[in-house]
Formats: sequence, C-alpha cells, structure tokens
Amino acid sequence: MSLEALKAEAGTAAVDRFVRSGMRLGLGTGSTAEKMLDALAERLASGALADVAGVPTSAATAARCGELGIPVLTLEEAGELDLAIDGADEIDPQLDLIKGLGGAHLREKVVAAAARQMVVVADESKVVSRLGERAPLPVEVIPFALPVAERLLRGLGWEPELRIDGGRPFQTDEGNRILHCRREEWVDPQALAADVSQVPGVVAHGFFLGFASAAAVATREGVRMLERPTAAP
Amino acid sequence: MSLEALKAEAGTAAVDRFVRSGMRLGLGTGSTAEKMLDALAERLASGALADVAGVPTSAATAARCGELGIPVLTLEEAGELDLAIDGADEIDPQLDLIKGLGGAHLREKVVAAAARQMVVVADESKVVSRLGERAPLPVEVIPFALPVAERLLRGLGWEPELRIDGGRPFQTDEGNRILHCRREEWVDPQALAADVSQVPGVVAHGFFLGFASAAAVATREGVRMLERPTAAP
Repeated sequence: MSLEALKAEAGTAAVDRFVRSGMRLGLGTGSTAEKMLDALAERLASGALADVAGVPTSAATAARCGELGIPVLTLEEAGELDLAIDGADEIDPQLDLIKGLGGAHLREKVVAAAARQMVVVADESKVVSRLGERAPLPVEVIPFALPVAERLLRGLGWEPELRIDGGRPFQTDEGNRILHCRREEWVDPQALAADVSQVPGVVAHGFFLGFASAAAVATREGVRMLERPTAAP
Repeated sequence: MSLEALKAEAGTAAVDRFVRSGMRLGLGTGSTAEKMLDALAERLASGALADVAGVPTSAATAARCGELGIPVLTLEEAGELDLAIDGADEIDPQLDLIKGLGGAHLREKVVAAAARQMVVVADESKVVSRLGERAPLPVEVIPFALPVAERLLRGLGWEPELRIDGGRPFQTDEGNRILHCRREEWVDPQALAADVSQVPGVVAHGFFLGFASAAAVATREGVRMLERPTAAP
C-alpha cells in the first residue's frame, strides 16, 4: 500500500473511532491530518456525522476546511474542545510526540491544550522507540531573537539549523522562524523541553509531552490503535 | 526631588558608571531607560564617550535613538553585547526582576540574554522585598492562544487580566497581547517562571531571574548602586 493510502487509512480510522456528532474538534495540519479532514468531510456529507465543527491549527487547514465544507470556529467561539486530531513527526511508546516539521506546532499545541483529548494520526514510519531518533526538534523563534536563541540553544547542547524553504527562511503563520534542532543525547525530554521553553525569543518547541491519549497508526497490516500507557503507580 | 528627576539621576549614574567607549549596548524601554538614553546622547555629543552603538529593545526606543543621534545596530550586526541597560517594574534583593509593564519585555529579555552584563536603572519605588509585592507579572501571549492561555494560567493559580490601552487590547511590537497576572503566593519565582514558560501560546513572561548584576537606584538621598549578592557557597 502506498504511503498516501496508509495516511488515508489512519485519518479515516481516527474519525470513525473518536469523532461523534455534536463534537467541537481541533483540526491538525499536515499530510495525514489532511486525510483526516477528507474523511470527516465525507462523513458529514453522508450524514453519518452531524453538527461537527473545528478549530483549524493553520491557515492551510482553514483553507482546506473551506474547500471541504467543514464548519470552522475560533478558539473563543469553541471554548473547550472535545477532541484534537493531528499528525506527528515522531511518536514514542508513551505517546509523547515531536511535532512541527509542518511548521504549525505553535497553534497545534494551543489547540491540543484546549482539547480534553488528543488523538494522533500517522503512518508507521513515525513510530520511534525514543524521541529524536530521526526527527529534529522544531523550535519557533521570533525573527528579532534568532542570533541569540541560536547561541543559547547551542549552549544547551543543541545544533540548531534555520529551516529554509525555496531558498528563503521559512515563515510561520505568526511570522516567526523555525530552527530545526538536533543533539546527541535525548535522554530526558521533559527536562529538555523545560530548558528550551526558557530560551528568550522561543515561542514554541515541538515536544508534545503528555498531550496524546491515543494514536491511529497505519501499518501495512492495517491500522493499529495505540493508547497511552497508564502512569506507573 | 521629582520622580522625573530621580529617574534622570539613575539613568545618568548608570551611563557614567558602566558605559565605556567602544561598547555595544542593549538599550531598554520605558521612562527611566529614556533618561538613560538622554544621558548617553549627551556623553556622545560632548565627546566623553565615543564609538558606542546599541540595539534598541522596542520601536519606541529605536525612534528615540534616531532623534537623539545614538547609533543603532541589529542583534545580528552587534553580536554579543557588552552591556544591557534597562528599567524594571520590581527589583528584589537578589536583583531578580519583574519587567514588562512597558509592554516590551520580550525583546528586552532577548537583548538582556545577548549581553554579558545587565544593569537596571530605576527609582526607589521599584525596590521590593519580594517579587509580586506590587506589580503583576506581564505575560505576552499570541492572540490566537488568548482564551486557552488564560484558562491554563488560572489553573496555575494566576489571575490574568488582559491589558487594555485606550479602550483596546494592548498590542506588542510582535503583534501579541499582554495578560497582567496576579496571584496570592509568589514564593518560588524560578518555579513560577518555568510553569508559565510552558503554557502553550505564551511568548514571554516578565520574570528576569539571574539577569541583572547591578542596579542604579535613585533615592531622595542620591543614587544607590546595588550589586547582585554572590550565591551562597
């Protein structure tokens, strides 16, 4: 099965398993989240779901919702969300995530925080045994702070690299830049996240720790539903 | 002596005590920082100081530098700064600060982090025995995140209040909003700062912990120079 088809399977499975009529959703960004939007629009058109509306996590997702006829709300209009559905760049066994290679993790994190539950949609290539295995940590930085944040991140053991798209620095929906940060040791993501959060000029980082409660992961053998292991007593 | 005159004394004392020819400075924002700019411009005009340039922490400070003929640099042009001079809203005995009632603490913190040393200029009304005694903590939030950040800050024990200026939400140089956050207990600013930093959508908070090494504080009996106490062994 093609990667595209796997992504569509994960997106459809998440909608069918977790979305109910009347829900207020957080709508993620990226290629797998797009497949989830397709499935959601299809269920709304068929009448299988009704009275569902969502808060888009990016201008791109908002535009796609418009094309597909999915009703959108602002966070203020929506209040607390029932469920956020979004992709991820890495998923570890605790369902801790790295996100942000799509460049939208600031709004994605706000929306995930607004939701009572977060479900991840992904293909199996995103499942890792520990965060940082393949993906860099995307860190969103205000343009003014770039040289300082870069130096401070190096001081914390990171190797930051400015994300370039089409020969120019990538710009987020908030007008910021992204540093893709790599490092040797990723032992304690919680501590790494706390340190990165405190670098002046950093607006958001791609660690999503303790957010996701489930993941629909498409494999060549079908969709696997992962759940967050309950914390050790 | 009037408050204005006290602020001018502190600004002048800081320039005369800490600024040397050839330095690259961080230039703060606010009414006392403005007095420091006046003194700096005066010393440059008289020839007492030469080859000094600074990185402004706000559009307002950049404009004032233009009027006064103080050469300005970007952070990228300046590299590491020798010294940042800025005001504060509260100064505790460790020279930990609350800043941001001027609405510019995001850039102020970036510039302070870019400097080898930070010196505070203030009048004695800003000296407190513990942070939070009088000032709220200004927290800068992206507009998209406002309802979520407000709810999460309440969950952390804060009472956030949107800063309004002239009947409309105040807008920072980065296009963000400010929440003035009050609380009962301010026991451990380091822990409070770490928690606030991790609220999604928070771009910067007004705690400046471990930044300032000295403060020029104008009192009715003259300018007192405070130094950060050395850490207990």
